[in-house]
Amino acid sequence: MQFATPQDVEDAYYDALETGDAQAMASIWDASEDAVCLLPMTPLVTGARIQRLWQAIFEQGGTFDIQVRHLIWIEGEEVAIHLVEEHSGQDQHEGQALAPIYATNVFRRGPDGWRLLLHQNSPTPPPPPAVPTNGRTAVA
Amino acid sequence: MQFATPQDVEDAYYDALETGDAQAMASIWDASEDAVCLLPMTPLVTGARIQRLWQAIFEQGGTFDIQVRHLIWIEGEEVAIHLVEEHSGQDQHEGQALAPIYATNVFRRGPDGWRLLLHQNSPTPPPPPAVPTNGRTAVA
Repeated sequence: MQFATPQDVEDAYYDALETGDAQAMASIWDASEDAVCLLPMTPLVTGARIQRLWQAIFEQGGTFDIQVRHLIWIEGEEVAIHLVEEHSGQDQHEGQALAPIYATNVFRRGPDGWRLLLHQNSPTPPPPPAVPTNGRTAVA
Repeated sequence: MQFATPQDVEDAYYDALETGDAQAMASIWDASEDAVCLLPMTPLVTGARIQRLWQAIFEQGGTFDIQVRHLIWIEGEEVAIHLVEEHSGQDQHEGQALAPIYATNVFRRGPDGWRLLLHQNSPTPPPPPAVPTNGRTAVA
């Protein structure tokens, strides 16, 4: 696979998550040992071990329907940075909306097009606490 | 202030944290609205609001003695990315070591030198649970 733009790589990343396609996932990463994948609350995974991480996740049946909202978009000739909010398609857990997760995706242009160099997730903060008012509950 | 290298900017960032110096902190950030500061479990702060965030933190007496361990170091002509582990100088809380925090620092070179464009923290995962063995406790 060749990707002509950072956005093509990003689309392919979230498509691979949705279909659980380890081969597609392998094709989108920068091949160097610099590549970084930092999923929520997991140890840092770098370089060739990123492929094995995703293979293991997908072999366990993991697929992820994630909608992305772009927050910041910085594009240069060689490096591009997209800061996004990831919303799970199943944004409900026991009747409660799941908080979105921040992600920074850094892309690098190489001789064979753009690739994903760094993916870092961070939790978003919990919503403000509900404030009781006159026996009812309002969100602060 | 002018910074000749990404590392100079990074050193100035952690120095400003240690001294609680809002003016020094203001000087290290990229001046564009693209700038991103994502501290642990806090809402995203961008652009000019980053200065106000740090001013508020420092006015409340916040200082942070952080030791940095570099994990990944990617440097280009215009953009540099350092992935680090931040260890708090007070890495003890109720007798327990505090987990380090991952941080990605992205630097951009502009007409007046390098600046910090994006700072994103992520929690590191908790240590493996203690496993009881023969009435004693060992770490798995």
